[in-house]
Amino acid sequence: MSNFGFRRLRVVNPYAAAFREARSAVGASELLANAEEFKTVAEAVADCTLVVGTTAVRHRELQHPLRRLEYGTRLIRKQMGSSRIALLFGSEKFGLSNAALSHCHWLMRIPTCEANISMNLGQAVAVCLYELVRDAKAARQTEKIERATAEELERVTTKLLEAMRGSGYLTRRPIADVEERMRRLVHRLNLPARDAVVWLGILRQIVWKLRSGKPNPRQEVTPSSS
Amino acid sequence: MSNFGFRRLRVVNPYAAAFREARSAVGASELLANAEEFKTVAEAVADCTLVVGTTAVRHRELQHPLRRLEYGTRLIRKQMGSSRIALLFGSEKFGLSNAALSHCHWLMRIPTCEANISMNLGQAVAVCLYELVRDAKAARQTEKIERATAEELERVTTKLLEAMRGSGYLTRRPIADVEERMRRLVHRLNLPARDAVVWLGILRQIVWKLRSGKPNPRQEVTPSSS
Repeated sequence: MSNFGFRRLRVVNPYAAAFREARSAVGASELLANAEEFKTVAEAVADCTLVVGTTAVRHRELQHPLRRLEYGTRLIRKQMGSSRIALLFGSEKFGLSNAALSHCHWLMRIPTCEANISMNLGQAVAVCLYELVRDAKAARQTEKIERATAEELERVTTKLLEAMRGSGYLTRRPIADVEERMRRLVHRLNLPARDAVVWLGILRQIVWKLRSGKPNPRQEVTPSSS
Repeated sequence: MSNFGFRRLRVVNPYAAAFREARSAVGASELLANAEEFKTVAEAVADCTLVVGTTAVRHRELQHPLRRLEYGTRLIRKQMGSSRIALLFGSEKFGLSNAALSHCHWLMRIPTCEANISMNLGQAVAVCLYELVRDAKAARQTEKIERATAEELERVTTKLLEAMRGSGYLTRRPIADVEERMRRLVHRLNLPARDAVVWLGILRQIVWKLRSGKPNPRQEVTPSSS
C-alpha cells in the first residue's frame, strides 16, 4: 500500500495478537499504525460508494459481475477522485466469505494461470494496487543516458583507425572504404558520452604504445590472424 | 511465478539452509523443486540474450538505461517468444550489486511512490510478472450475468403495480402515467434473470397476502405516510 500511495487500511476482525504486534513493530509505517479496525464488513465499508471484492474463483455460481483486473481498475479509476472506494480482500486461506461478498457491487480477479489461481495475499494486494496506479502514458519515458556527440564519435573513429594502422591490421587485411566502414562500426555502438571518453582513452594508450615500438615486457606480443 | 506461468527459476548463491528448506517444503511447487542453482550471475544468465535488472533506485549514477515497468515489459514481450530472457532481482535487503548490474542490458523500475520506493521482494516479482502477462485487450471481458428479458421485467412491473394498488399506495399518492413510470423504474434495476424470478416471487406473495385481507398475526400492520 505504501509503495503505491494508498493510505487507508481498514481491517475487519483481525487476529488480535498478530495485528497488535504488526502495528507496534519498529518501523511500522504510519499506514499500519493508522489502520482502522472494524467488527464487520458492513461497518468497514459503510461510507463507501463502491465496494469491489477480489476473488481467485472463476466458476462459482456468479452472483456478481466478475471483471479482470485490467478492466475493473479502469472502472474504479473513473470514480477514484470523486468517491470513496473500498477494495475488499479476504483472508489468505479462505478468501472472501459469501457474507462479505454480499457487500460488494462487483468482483475483480487477477489474471492468473489456471494451474495456480490462488495468490499470496500481499502479492495480490500489490498487483491490484500497482494496476490502479500504472500509467501507460508515463511509461514511455526512459531515463535518458546522454549519448556521445558526432564529434566525440569521430575522435573515437580516428583513434581506432590509427590503432588499426599502427598494429598492422590494415596491412594484413586491407579494407575498402575503411574510414566509412569504421565510422559506421563506431556509430552502431550507440555509445553513451561517458563511455566514448573511456574508449578514446584506451585507444590513445594503445596508439601511443604501438608508436613507442617497445613490446610490453609482461606480455608477449604474438600477432595472430584469427 | 507459478501464478503467472513462469517456470524457470534460477538462484545465485542462495542461503543454503533456507533454500533447502523451501525446496523440500510440503507443497513446494514443481517450479521451486526444479530451480537451478548457480555460483555467479554470469553463469546464471550465460544462455540469455537479454538480461534486464530490476532496481528501486532512481537517481544512482546511471550506467544503464532505466525504464518504467510498463514500458520495459513492452520491450521484453517483443522478444519473449524468440529468445531466452532473464529478469534479475537482487536480495531484498541490498538489491542488485554493481557487479550483478554489470551483466544487465538495461534496468527496469516499478513506479512506486517517492515516499517508499523499496518493495518486498515477492511483491516486486509478482508485480513485474503480472505486468508481463497482463492483457489490455482481454481485459474488457466481464464474465456476463444473464439479464432478465423484457417479458420477465414486464411481469415484475405488473406485479409491482398490483402490489401498489392493493396496498393503497396509489390511492394515497396518485401518480400520473403510473404504468410507464413503474416500467422505467423496474428497467433501471438492470435485473439479472435469476433476481427477476426472486422479485416476482416476493411481489406475488405480497399481492396474495394483500388480497387475502387478513393481517399477519405476527406483525401489526400500520400503514404510514413516511
